[in-house]
Amino acid sequence: MTKLKWGMIGGGEGSQIGPAHRLGAQADGLFELSAGALDHRADVGRKYAQQLGIQKDRAYGDWQEMLAGEKNRTDRIDLVTVATPNATHFEITKAFLEAGFNVLCEKPMTMSIEEGEEIVRVVKTTGKICAVNYCYSAYPMIRQARAMVRANEIGKIRLVVTNFSHGHHGDATDADNPRVRWRYDPKMAGVSGQFADCGIHAMHMASFICDDEVERLSADFASTISSRELEDDAMVNFRMGRGTVGRLWTSSVAIGRQHGFDIQVFGETGGLRWASEQPNQLIYTPVGGRTQIIEKGESGLHEDATRLSRVSVAHPEGFPLAVANIYCDLADAIRGEIRDGLPNAIDGLRSMTAVHTAVKSAKSDGKWLDARPPMLR
Amino acid sequence: MTKLKWGMIGGGEGSQIGPAHRLGAQADGLFELSAGALDHRADVGRKYAQQLGIQKDRAYGDWQEMLAGEKNRTDRIDLVTVATPNATHFEITKAFLEAGFNVLCEKPMTMSIEEGEEIVRVVKTTGKICAVNYCYSAYPMIRQARAMVRANEIGKIRLVVTNFSHGHHGDATDADNPRVRWRYDPKMAGVSGQFADCGIHAMHMASFICDDEVERLSADFASTISSRELEDDAMVNFRMGRGTVGRLWTSSVAIGRQHGFDIQVFGETGGLRWASEQPNQLIYTPVGGRTQIIEKGESGLHEDATRLSRVSVAHPEGFPLAVANIYCDLADAIRGEIRDGLPNAIDGLRSMTAVHTAVKSAKSDGKWLDARPPMLR
Amino acid sequence: MTKLKWGMIGGGEGSQIGPAHRLGAQADGLFELSAGALDHRADVGRKYAQQLGIQKDRAYGDWQEMLAGEKNRTDRIDLVTVATPNATHFEITKAFLEAGFNVLCEKPMTMSIEEGEEIVRVVKTTGKICAVNYCYSAYPMIRQARAMVRANEIGKIRLVVTNFSHGHHGDATDADNPRVRWRYDPKMAGVSGQFADCGIHAMHMASFICDDEVERLSADFASTISSRELEDDAMVNFRMGRGTVGRLWTSSVAIGRQHGFDIQVFGETGGLRWASEQPNQLIYTPVGGRTQIIEKGESGLHEDATRLSRVSVAHPEGFPLAVANIYCDLADAIRGEIRDGLPNAIDGLRSMTAVHTAVKSAKSDGKWLDARPPMLR
Amino acid sequence: MTKLKWGMIGGGEGSQIGPAHRLGAQADGLFELSAGALDHRADVGRKYAQQLGIQKDRAYGDWQEMLAGEKNRTDRIDLVTVATPNATHFEITKAFLEAGFNVLCEKPMTMSIEEGEEIVRVVKTTGKICAVNYCYSAYPMIRQARAMVRANEIGKIRLVVTNFSHGHHGDATDADNPRVRWRYDPKMAGVSGQFADCGIHAMHMASFICDDEVERLSADFASTISSRELEDDAMVNFRMGRGTVGRLWTSSVAIGRQHGFDIQVFGETGGLRWASEQPNQLIYTPVGGRTQIIEKGESGLHEDATRLSRVSVAHPEGFPLAVANIYCDLADAIRGEIRDGLPNAIDGLRSMTAVHTAVKSAKSDGKWLDARPPMLR
Repeated sequence: MTKLKWGMIGGGEGSQIGPAHRLGAQADGLFELSAGALDHRADVGRKYAQQLGIQKDRAYGDWQEMLAGEKNRTDRIDLVTVATPNATHFEITKAFLEAGFNVLCEKPMTMSIEEGEEIVRVVKTTGKICAVNYCYSAYPMIRQARAMVRANEIGKIRLVVTNFSHGHHGDATDADNPRVRWRYDPKMAGVSGQFADCGIHAMHMASFICDDEVERLSADFASTISSRELEDDAMVNFRMGRGTVGRLWTSSVAIGRQHGFDIQVFGETGGLRWASEQPNQLIYTPVGGRTQIIEKGESGLHEDATRLSRVSVAHPEGFPLAVANIYCDLADAIRGEIRDGLPNAIDGLRSMTAVHTAVKSAKSDGKWLDARPPMLR
Repeated sequence: MTKLKWGMIGGGEGSQIGPAHRLGAQADGLFELSAGALDHRADVGRKYAQQLGIQKDRAYGDWQEMLAGEKNRTDRIDLVTVATPNATHFEITKAFLEAGFNVLCEKPMTMSIEEGEEIVRVVKTTGKICAVNYCYSAYPMIRQARAMVRANEIGKIRLVVTNFSHGHHGDATDADNPRVRWRYDPKMAGVSGQFADCGIHAMHMASFICDDEVERLSADFASTISSRELEDDAMVNFRMGRGTVGRLWTSSVAIGRQHGFDIQVFGETGGLRWASEQPNQLIYTPVGGRTQIIEKGESGLHEDATRLSRVSVAHPEGFPLAVANIYCDLADAIRGEIRDGLPNAIDGLRSMTAVHTAVKSAKSDGKWLDARPPMLR
Repeated sequence: MTKLKWGMIGGGEGSQIGPAHRLGAQADGLFELSAGALDHRADVGRKYAQQLGIQKDRAYGDWQEMLAGEKNRTDRIDLVTVATPNATHFEITKAFLEAGFNVLCEKPMTMSIEEGEEIVRVVKTTGKICAVNYCYSAYPMIRQARAMVRANEIGKIRLVVTNFSHGHHGDATDADNPRVRWRYDPKMAGVSGQFADCGIHAMHMASFICDDEVERLSADFASTISSRELEDDAMVNFRMGRGTVGRLWTSSVAIGRQHGFDIQVFGETGGLRWASEQPNQLIYTPVGGRTQIIEKGESGLHEDATRLSRVSVAHPEGFPLAVANIYCDLADAIRGEIRDGLPNAIDGLRSMTAVHTAVKSAKSDGKWLDARPPMLR
Repeated sequence: MTKLKWGMIGGGEGSQIGPAHRLGAQADGLFELSAGALDHRADVGRKYAQQLGIQKDRAYGDWQEMLAGEKNRTDRIDLVTVATPNATHFEITKAFLEAGFNVLCEKPMTMSIEEGEEIVRVVKTTGKICAVNYCYSAYPMIRQARAMVRANEIGKIRLVVTNFSHGHHGDATDADNPRVRWRYDPKMAGVSGQFADCGIHAMHMASFICDDEVERLSADFASTISSRELEDDAMVNFRMGRGTVGRLWTSSVAIGRQHGFDIQVFGETGGLRWASEQPNQLIYTPVGGRTQIIEKGESGLHEDATRLSRVSVAHPEGFPLAVANIYCDLADAIRGEIRDGLPNAIDGLRSMTAVHTAVKSAKSDGKWLDARPPMLR
């Protein structure tokens, strides 16, 4: 099986996200880094691309140049990853889809609902793949949870409770640090701070595991550090299509929480718990029975959980391999085997709609609002 | 030091709460069970009282008889514990206070806000002690948390997040079991189910540790088992007097959670975490520093935490000794050394006001409402 | 049911062990403190006894006086607890047994094997109860573990692994502190330091759960702080009567371990794990199946586990109530219902034999030696 | 930086270890799979190699063919990984080293001490790199632990306690399964079962973190499933060069333990704890202070820990990336920057000497024996 050809926009030297994608794409030998426009400084990007082994003529200065260069090649890239600043995702993703490329877009897919709907339309028209990097959903035990829900192993879902809270922005004396400040500045971050940054992962996860969609929500936002215009703490209550009650807390001032992303799903006949700091276990309790620990790699797991685990039971696999699992599903999809777990443009649109709806609700004293994208109502 | 004389109303044979109070009162040799009206069946109660060593003439058939019998004795009881069905707490507590007795009342102190205000007035008039059994607040490490907040060790409190969620009422096939059903039936439980039963412990705890009071709240209630009239799951957002943001989730259908009462407090310079299933540790993170484990019994704890711990570091102490700590504080208070940690009638009133306010908010689509008792506005 | 009459020798003001026994004996209202010789300073002891509510004529100056005073009373004590310095346990226990009293002796029961055998003989002759305070064995979940083994729920036991390690004597600069130093000084502590102090609890627990006895052992002792004559760290390998392999590590220099007493039992069809810092859970894994969490108080536990739990599932119960459970079993035994879980003089003898055997083995480069008491070979 | 050329012997289709190495070598884009003899069935191996993208002329049928093919190429591989059955490691490693190749050998490096010494000599003569895949030592937090010890942050090491115990061979009904059986059959596994398979990782780790070597040891082996000739459970006590006391337990019948590899290191001024199931945290307690949680990725870690972590704090990294870290260190070493953490031939020799010494001790009733390789005494 020859490797697929892969290109990258953004993720240059010194970025956090670049190495994560390169590791994810290359770990299983599925993709070969063939083209790139890695930096907003054209020369720096070209040079770094070549250092990473990209041939000179495919080491581009910007995404427009890359689009022009790749679209007429017979050995054009099979997939492009968009890992640029948030506000540029829409334009780049749209352009590449329209030129017939498959895209993996970092979250958020767009900044507005309208842009999100536009991407969904472009995907429909072009038939190309547009994935969004909700990579937590690719952890094997999250796939197991989803499969258990689908197989009715915990009954109809009554309640989902999820948190994504950390304390890394809790130091007021560091709040003006540009690396932190932009997230709470609407000129740079858009309408939402912490909910758009982290909370949205939790909301996607809730939908993903419950195999259902958020229909209505009510939000309470707070800027606990007063210099912040956007929220650094948020609570969102919601209801899903099949009646599931949802509770989502997200915070960046929860000092002492490191990577506090966890989810609990409670059905009529059982409950599930997962935490991202120990991602290789899924805690399961059948109603009236004892709590059990389901281990990644144990025998008898659902197919999706088994397929996306690389090493034997209780050898931990971590975050970078969750990203790699997104690339596994992408490689299959490009070759024609669509993996329904792969987060797509509709997920990206739903997330953006949830962000805007939550902002509006929070501004209206927690009013309950319709959280469905207009095109899907 | 001679033992104090103690009486009990309710808590007869087969009750859960009776043994917990007897253990709590007797564990440290501070109280002697001297009188009791232990059962709504007069004969059964009298007989059981004598089995427990109460003299025949103080083994009463009902609380009225006990009140009449005790009030004129020179060796009258120093304290009476009211552990009867919820709806009777108000009347009994009031009567005993007015007759000059100190009272420890099980929660809820009353069923209505008006009754709560009446008790507060009676306490003021009589000068007697009226404690309410928010016993979780008497765990040594909760006292440590409160003392740390007061000593400004984690700075101004930005955020408090607390849960009291279990799954013991999650089995729909068991929902008609009378032992479970009454909690969700307004004829027996009053206006609220799970929030009044468990959530209110969490709300008291938030106030207790933050040393602040809930001013406004917004609630989202759900009855996830459709036969239930009252809520079995609730989310309450709130704001406290000094601006602290609060988030409180409580559930009885969280299958797999056993005794999921936990609290996280986030201040400007640090965070604290505590969980009732491991009550002997308090997790502390200074801003920018490493998470530390504070152990019950370690040297250098605040006075209140040290005083209420009986065995050396890392020997676990559990729930019954938290109840015993309430009795320790009561013994001191009766002897004239008022312990400010002892939950009192104002706490009982605030709780009842929060319950009624949350119910009203939940019925008004989560409208934010003033949660302060009218008499304290 | 009238309370049993109880006396105490040692455990005066300021001792750790005195309050633990008083709480244990009184928590469930089973015993009444009726007599005591609480301090080696006669006057201090008499005064403190009266403060605790003991009548003046039963507030004794020393144990000989107490023995003389009690033995001719018609209302003599039903049980005496011996909580004096280790070297005096034998003589006091023997004297009270011979005078027809039931005794609860703190561990170690004796300092030598010969003394241990003597106590066993006296018990046989007198027919009185001699219990030894291996109180950890009275935790409900330890009783559950033993019952599971007896019911063959994990098959024939292949392996038991237990640790009792802490770090509270790990500070070399504190090693001369008299409170610490005596444990490593043979003139005060006898032949063994950490193994006799803590390790022996672990060895008793292994026998208790496996329902089997240590037959042979091999020991490796170390004094990691050079000024110590006796060991502060020890490893003991052993074999039990039915072939079970045993591994026991104990340390007092394991800095960071607080109360690191834990045990793992591995049978042909399952494994069990328990840790004293979270005593209310027993972790169970059936062979080929998932790990399950057994909670204190859940329905369907073995009788002994249910009987010795006071509050409902997941309300933690701690160390002082494990001591109280010993007193529960004692009260039953005194009234004629013998509880086979109550640690007795033979357990005390076996422990002392194990200590002396381990010391001898450690001095002989780990030679395997017979660890059975001579009288039981 | 162009990729290094990498070859592989063994690790064909269906093997566990093949994908782990390929992921490890490729994850960071450091190595390119250029040659391989992947299967003992020549045709199968050649075909699979080409599927993995190896050119036809470098897809070899066996290692001899590969050695012949590679040694005269100007673009010969920079590194060969030996992942064949244990008994063949010595011969292949030796041959490739002598032909001037750098080698990463799976453990065990050899089957005998003599072979181990021979490899050490060959390394010295040829100057080539011979690494052994003790990959657990490449977890960032293990590197942190070692660096803390070297920086004297926990003082002179008194004690190291390590376990590598699982229960995956605990099912007697599965003992004849060939996948399990060979490990306990001396004809296939050599002189030792569980100690050579897992225990040796723990022993290497103890040496690695303590920066010291095992000098003497005493072992107790057991075959708890009677059909097994070799041990499935072992305890090894040891002493290191600077006096550190060591305790190592390893088992494959510890039902319920999944991947129970953990280590505790206790020094004069602090203690450290690490567990492989939560590899991203290192637990540290300064003497007299509180236990702290050190997180992978936090600021201020030692250089080696920071360098080998890819994603930000509290994003878990797992086992495959520990393997990748070995390849990172190898890439550096090949390019001339020797990483002293890279396990080498002397480590491989020491391990093999420890295995043979432990077997001999266990057969001699736990006699203490010199565990140093003869050539290093």
